[in-house]
Amino acid sequence: MRRWNGWGDDSVHYPVTPETMAFLEKKLGPGKPPKDISLSEAVAGVPVSRLPEHPLISTDALERLRHSAGQSLADWINLRGGTVPAFPDGVAFPATEREVRAVLRYAQDTEARVIPYGGGTSVVGHLSAGSDNDRRPALTVDMGRINSLLELDEANHLATFEAGVRGPALEKALRVMGFTLGHYPQSHEYSTLGGWVATRSAGQFSLGYGRIERLFAGGMVETPVDSLPLPVLPASAAGPDLREIVLGSEGRLGIITRAAVRVKPLPEVESFHAAFFPGLEQGVAAVRDLARSSLPLAMLRLSLPEETDNILTQAGNSPALKLLKGWLNIQGVKEGRCMLLYGAVGGRKQVRRALSGAREIIGQRRGVSVGAGPGRKWQKQRFLVPYLRNTLWEAGYAVDTLETAVTWSRVPATVQAVESALRNGLRDIDEKVYVFTHLSHVYTHGSSIYTTYLFRVADHPAETMRRWKQLKTRASETIVSYGGTISHQHGVGVDHRAYLEAEKDDLGMEMLRSICRTMDPAGMMNPGKLL
Amino acid sequence: MRRWNGWGDDSVHYPVTPETMAFLEKKLGPGKPPKDISLSEAVAGVPVSRLPEHPLISTDALERLRHSAGQSLADWINLRGGTVPAFPDGVAFPATEREVRAVLRYAQDTEARVIPYGGGTSVVGHLSAGSDNDRRPALTVDMGRINSLLELDEANHLATFEAGVRGPALEKALRVMGFTLGHYPQSHEYSTLGGWVATRSAGQFSLGYGRIERLFAGGMVETPVDSLPLPVLPASAAGPDLREIVLGSEGRLGIITRAAVRVKPLPEVESFHAAFFPGLEQGVAAVRDLARSSLPLAMLRLSLPEETDNILTQAGNSPALKLLKGWLNIQGVKEGRCMLLYGAVGGRKQVRRALSGAREIIGQRRGVSVGAGPGRKWQKQRFLVPYLRNTLWEAGYAVDTLETAVTWSRVPATVQAVESALRNGLRDIDEKVYVFTHLSHVYTHGSSIYTTYLFRVADHPAETMRRWKQLKTRASETIVSYGGTISHQHGVGVDHRAYLEAEKDDLGMEMLRSICRTMDPAGMMNPGKLL
Repeated sequence: MRRWNGWGDDSVHYPVTPETMAFLEKKLGPGKPPKDISLSEAVAGVPVSRLPEHPLISTDALERLRHSAGQSLADWINLRGGTVPAFPDGVAFPATEREVRAVLRYAQDTEARVIPYGGGTSVVGHLSAGSDNDRRPALTVDMGRINSLLELDEANHLATFEAGVRGPALEKALRVMGFTLGHYPQSHEYSTLGGWVATRSAGQFSLGYGRIERLFAGGMVETPVDSLPLPVLPASAAGPDLREIVLGSEGRLGIITRAAVRVKPLPEVESFHAAFFPGLEQGVAAVRDLARSSLPLAMLRLSLPEETDNILTQAGNSPALKLLKGWLNIQGVKEGRCMLLYGAVGGRKQVRRALSGAREIIGQRRGVSVGAGPGRKWQKQRFLVPYLRNTLWEAGYAVDTLETAVTWSRVPATVQAVESALRNGLRDIDEKVYVFTHLSHVYTHGSSIYTTYLFRVADHPAETMRRWKQLKTRASETIVSYGGTISHQHGVGVDHRAYLEAEKDDLGMEMLRSICRTMDPAGMMNPGKLL
Repeated sequence: MRRWNGWGDDSVHYPVTPETMAFLEKKLGPGKPPKDISLSEAVAGVPVSRLPEHPLISTDALERLRHSAGQSLADWINLRGGTVPAFPDGVAFPATEREVRAVLRYAQDTEARVIPYGGGTSVVGHLSAGSDNDRRPALTVDMGRINSLLELDEANHLATFEAGVRGPALEKALRVMGFTLGHYPQSHEYSTLGGWVATRSAGQFSLGYGRIERLFAGGMVETPVDSLPLPVLPASAAGPDLREIVLGSEGRLGIITRAAVRVKPLPEVESFHAAFFPGLEQGVAAVRDLARSSLPLAMLRLSLPEETDNILTQAGNSPALKLLKGWLNIQGVKEGRCMLLYGAVGGRKQVRRALSGAREIIGQRRGVSVGAGPGRKWQKQRFLVPYLRNTLWEAGYAVDTLETAVTWSRVPATVQAVESALRNGLRDIDEKVYVFTHLSHVYTHGSSIYTTYLFRVADHPAETMRRWKQLKTRASETIVSYGGTISHQHGVGVDHRAYLEAEKDDLGMEMLRSICRTMDPAGMMNPGKLL
């Protein structure tokens, strides 16, 4: 069963070692387990629905509670503290495109706002029902039943799925036919193809397979005024690319019901390796060089010094690890070191070539290769990390992440500024914030910056929320002032809405609004999100 | 001096061999040199300007004649026959963004339509001034003076140019700093960076460097309502990508004045090779396999049988060529053969690896490698081919090209249908049409199809135009009925406007119109083009 107030399946736990707990206590002070409300208390807090009955729509309180939030830290604080500001008045479960259109008509008739819901994994507030002050009822449309593989076109390496398909089901359907999409966001276990498109998702292997922008080849959007088909073409110079308007539309134009994606034959081999650099400077230079090489690598992740330290601490104190640390010390890779994970997938020969080319570049930047051990560990745990949030919350520590992307020359200063804004962000109340960063998506001209921060949960949800807002605001303002995008991979939602104009400009915002008005004249689609 | 009624510099001629002429006569019947009007006759046909004076604007008749058309066959027929339907009332030569804004204000004050003009190389009617029935005067804005390199950001592999810079000047400015953009459309000698962005241009090396969509990193558009800055970000998940709306906007939203592009260090080596396949089937399978490999190739061009035959005929009858043909015959590569040119650019090791990997795939598809000779020849002549149009026109033969892209499985049938629509397109008047095709842009899921067709120029320009329109209409309808894009690399302009809705759908067209209305409420920007 899926957790109603946290990440993932409630039978899965991610325990932390005593060393990690001691480490966190040293960083932040002792945590105090928060007094979360119970499920029955939460259900009791769901008000009466304002929507009339419909065979496709549930007004059940538990269902509405389960669809009232995503996975942002603000969502967690509200769910666990009993302070969710508004609940959807109903949850629709359409099973066909025709039923999606019927649901949209129902929403028009009842003047309801429509919140498209894929896997419920948004971390920026895409799914919140706004505030109870809104005169209009809110209808969440859960796409979970529209999830079939419609066509695998082997000749053209294309697959068409209904948009509600989740990551594992999508990969499973492709795998039996010998194909893969290769799109693995951290949320893969629950997130959906439609959600990836609507939020411009990036995955752990996007270096090799490309972001969802590259994989999404066409499909269908059901908008309030009509259906919008997006034909599949290899490339086109016939005017602006409408796919690129649907990508990142965050439910504002309509509901993505179907998507064709570019697939690849299953790789023969997947191979992940690790290396350590003496410091941030060499590590950043190495991933920049790797991004500019023509090597067919599938993933890179450079943990900056604090994150590297954290990973080595979490790994415990096995003899193998002691040996590794000793070896690194001998090589002059000590305090301030950075760990790089890198991997290739594909044909045996291609993978060998990619990895040996990568090792050459890593060596040129004074990196020390340490083999496949840490890579294998990462591969095993890569979708488990979100479960750690549950464990830490229960120990009294809140975890959040944020991200941006900047050109290479701005990377070091931006990392430092964002980390420092967070680290000192609760000085006013003498609370510490523990911050670390990695670079996981690299381009010829720049890199993403992905920062994790932890702070102590307060006695009252309102105070925890105040702390989070203060940190989030300071970090976001810093990102904007350093010329970074407000989101490289999480989207805009409600959390980043105030910062979008810095990127799109006045006129760009007006352009986007005019598109929304065309598809959705009544402003019923996910209002309050994105724009 | 640039030709006023044909392609390129008037001191450059592309002679054809007697063999080629005999070949064409056999295919189409003898050509009759058309009675083109003279430059002074053409200038005399330019009416009085309807625009008031302005220091940045010329109303000189010759200047207006020179800006009245692009390089489409319809443009040629009109220029050479004296049937240009309308001339711009003035040509503006702004030298700065401020002057572009001044010109736009002038156009607003005088209710003029604005036609942005880059290198004048459009082949789909982007530059025509419409018809003289239009109540509003037409003002063409020549961007040729806005052409400087503004910044080369070596650390981030980014260069920012003013948008009027032409291909050779852009590459020269980069080369002295050790960089290249690697964007080489056939029009490279004259076409501009702004024009590439406005029309979603593809280049001969787009397999390696990417289409202009990938290279264009940000910039500035001056619209009638305001300036629209597009910031440079490595990637962003913050809503729809506005760059992708400017790409392909064909002057409808405003004038692109500045563009940042992703550049690469100059390659150590450029190496082009050739191979022959027994037939179309093996050739298409080989380029499909190459497109799906991870080999860092920079270009591919598969000439289908008729084009291969044409190339071998044009190459004359040297002993080396006789030897080549003999060798191919021995290998069983005879009638119906296809020639592949392929190349790699980059580091020595990388190029060697790419080429040897390619040869392996070529061998698997029964291709016979014939070394670097034809590749070197192509490299030398690759920007000269458009000059051939002048020579052939003067011999009485009209040349036009058209293109589309479809998924792989549709390639053979689409080629056959388009070629047959053209080949039989003038049956009603017993005229022959000579048609041949190549595939030059390949993707994992499909390929472009680029078709050249020749027919005899008639005694009267109106009849030549009628022939062209009949052929163009039949080919375009065929493309649409086979699910192809109406343009893979030429754009929409006026020539493809009727076919755009098949690709964008009703609602997509409405979406694009709403964007135009936002940026250009008075509908002054390039009306009649694109939408």
